[in-house]
Amino acid sequence: MKKLVIFSLMSVLVNQLVAQNSGVPYPEGYKEYKHIKTMIIKPEHPQAEIFEGIHHIYANDKAYDGYKDGKFIDGSVIVLDYLQYEDKNHTIYETSRNYVAVMHKDEKKYKNTQGWGYEAFSEDSKDKRLVVDVNKMCANCHGTKKDSGYIFSTIRK
Amino acid sequence: MKKLVIFSLMSVLVNQLVAQNSGVPYPEGYKEYKHIKTMIIKPEHPQAEIFEGIHHIYANDKAYDGYKDGKFIDGSVIVLDYLQYEDKNHTIYETSRNYVAVMHKDEKKYKNTQGWGYEAFSEDSKDKRLVVDVNKMCANCHGTKKDSGYIFSTIRK
Repeated sequence: MKKLVIFSLMSVLVNQLVAQNSGVPYPEGYKEYKHIKTMIIKPEHPQAEIFEGIHHIYANDKAYDGYKDGKFIDGSVIVLDYLQYEDKNHTIYETSRNYVAVMHKDEKKYKNTQGWGYEAFSEDSKDKRLVVDVNKMCANCHGTKKDSGYIFSTIRK
Repeated sequence: MKKLVIFSLMSVLVNQLVAQNSGVPYPEGYKEYKHIKTMIIKPEHPQAEIFEGIHHIYANDKAYDGYKDGKFIDGSVIVLDYLQYEDKNHTIYETSRNYVAVMHKDEKKYKNTQGWGYEAFSEDSKDKRLVVDVNKMCANCHGTKKDSGYIFSTIRK
């Protein structure tokens, strides 16, 4: 009986962990991906609570092809590197990291969110995951961009 | 006699062209190089006349190794992409290009400027060159950075 209780308890815990974990891997080496664009979101911006700071967008080779031809194949990875910035001595420059946001394409695995998995890793952590409600935090908004493969950004000039 | 005059005139013109042309090639495909860092120089900055705008720094594979180990071998190419920016709707984003600045490592060819060739290409042109006095415009200042291979930037966090 005791064993059964422990087993049931473990099942619940495992299910919770699975529910919380998108399965999107940390994008090792993403700073060596292709640079797509950069933007600063200022404190007065309506979405500043989440997006304030300077962010760089990077694409692995598959995603870079997607930006060019509009078709993001499985294995495409897009990374948004969200950093804080200083506005000092008449310059603006990046400082510490807020989080690393990731979009990972896998049509089968992420069929409920248009084929894209979403995750964000806190500060410099490779395992402290921030996405707890993928629809509310990511997919609902990206879902409106069907015509561009569910992606908001385009390669800069 | 007429032929000699024309020949001499041509020699002078060719010499002038050679003197004005650094020989640094336009860095085709540089937006696919590794992204090193980004910075904004504001209008009040003391060097704003030259550097105002948002710039991204990119390195080809040889130069990227140089950023990591401090040794920039021949063939290293560093590109500074200088763009204008808009500060609008609580965001700052890149717009049109001011110029593409290039550092090209070739110890023999550029022995008079510490092994680095310097050039800048106006706006989106691949042949409208801007560097007319390499020492004054580039090498004198970079020459002070011997300990870091004559490079000012470092890979961002």
